[in-house]
Amino acid sequence: MRIFRLLIAYDGTGLVGWQRQPDGVSVQGLLEDALAPLHTERPVANAAGRTDAGVHATGQVVSVGLDSPLDASAVLRAANARLPPHVRVIDAAEAPAGFHARFDARAKTYEYRIVSRPVCDPFLHRFAWHVPMALDVDLMSEAAACLEGTHDFRCFQSAGSDVRTTVREVFESTVRVVSGSMAAPLVPVVGAGAAPVILYRITGSGFLRHMVRAIAGTLVEIGRHAAAPSLIPSLLAGEDRAAAGPTAPAHALCLTHVSYERGPEPVATHR
Amino acid sequence: MRIFRLLIAYDGTGLVGWQRQPDGVSVQGLLEDALAPLHTERPVANAAGRTDAGVHATGQVVSVGLDSPLDASAVLRAANARLPPHVRVIDAAEAPAGFHARFDARAKTYEYRIVSRPVCDPFLHRFAWHVPMALDVDLMSEAAACLEGTHDFRCFQSAGSDVRTTVREVFESTVRVVSGSMAAPLVPVVGAGAAPVILYRITGSGFLRHMVRAIAGTLVEIGRHAAAPSLIPSLLAGEDRAAAGPTAPAHALCLTHVSYERGPEPVATHR
Repeated sequence: MRIFRLLIAYDGTGLVGWQRQPDGVSVQGLLEDALAPLHTERPVANAAGRTDAGVHATGQVVSVGLDSPLDASAVLRAANARLPPHVRVIDAAEAPAGFHARFDARAKTYEYRIVSRPVCDPFLHRFAWHVPMALDVDLMSEAAACLEGTHDFRCFQSAGSDVRTTVREVFESTVRVVSGSMAAPLVPVVGAGAAPVILYRITGSGFLRHMVRAIAGTLVEIGRHAAAPSLIPSLLAGEDRAAAGPTAPAHALCLTHVSYERGPEPVATHR
Repeated sequence: MRIFRLLIAYDGTGLVGWQRQPDGVSVQGLLEDALAPLHTERPVANAAGRTDAGVHATGQVVSVGLDSPLDASAVLRAANARLPPHVRVIDAAEAPAGFHARFDARAKTYEYRIVSRPVCDPFLHRFAWHVPMALDVDLMSEAAACLEGTHDFRCFQSAGSDVRTTVREVFESTVRVVSGSMAAPLVPVVGAGAAPVILYRITGSGFLRHMVRAIAGTLVEIGRHAAAPSLIPSLLAGEDRAAAGPTAPAHALCLTHVSYERGPEPVATHR
């Protein structure tokens, strides 16, 4: 059996998330079904980030063992031929024996999009949180920077989570206004071009359950002056979850990149 | 009763098109329902372009008479509060008495998107035609230019159409490769940024039924060397429809702009 490393992208609208569930359509289920003809047993796909229901991915990485003699580009074609068009394998490569997309990941990057204009573009509403009020991006940016470093993020996890430690390292945590292809709906709306969106980007060693969405919800509270940027340091210092903002909706979150210590970065050569 | 001119945008996926139908959800039906509280009788909305099922719009213009005392920005807010998020009023203005979005339109611009890469981005498949083969963009561009001017476009209309004349004037007909916000899926795929798409843009005085899609299908035949660019002039000279390419799918077509002789261009000030 050889291990393949797949770079995949998906529009998470209407999906129950990465992980196979008793009910509903999952990315894992779709992918394992698509790869089933390439393996004697039922294939098992492991993803770097087990994205929640409704969350999108442009740079998810998956490892899967297959005993098919096909090479990586044939695996890519076979998978895409059986996947629905909103889930695509963008790149495939054979990986070293023992490669595991989640356990070997060194860092993951998530992006969260917020539209603060009165009217949300109809092509963007599936991918951004519409908060139709003025948001102070400078304050949000100042607050976001406080999350960089190694901290106990227990205030930003969902109740009922059960993990060994709630300490994580955040390498980048930035808020900025982006436009063009970073913000864009498919086609710019007449008269205004592709309108800007507020983009929160976080890269970390790992993430607690709903952590990015809890942070995004808190940053919006700060942006609308319902809380001060100093809320972030005080939450990290141990205040309880109730002081944080509400968990922001899933549909505005996207997993964009996964980094590994070993081996080359996946490159989208088969697009 | 005052006439309002609305600039609207919609993701046409799953809609039966602009025009109200006995079955299915239409943009006209959604908009007239949303505006119903603002008029004593049932409001009647007229669109510049009666887009087909599945076709999108970023710059559709609509005229509607309302006897509500609300001003244009309040009409915009009231409509958006009742419309689903994939249909939005982007701008609203009071128009001169007698203004009719379709009869007064001087020119309309449509865009048609084609992805010729082996793998179509999962965020783009709802808005572009996936033709996974090498296409000769220079030949397509040369052929497209032949459509500019005043011609009889009867070879590019659907069978069964019943119009007074099949002569139309085309002001612009261009094929080019675009990227960034013109091509973009919401978020660029890792490693490659927003990948380029082939964009066909046509501006004309008016369009026959399925005309843009018939042209797009013919341009793809030329792009894959199944026909020569000279096919376009010979079709315009009177060959029959069977010599043209197949009608390309609706979901890759978008109405982007409508021009009027009188009055200022609508500007998206309420976004």
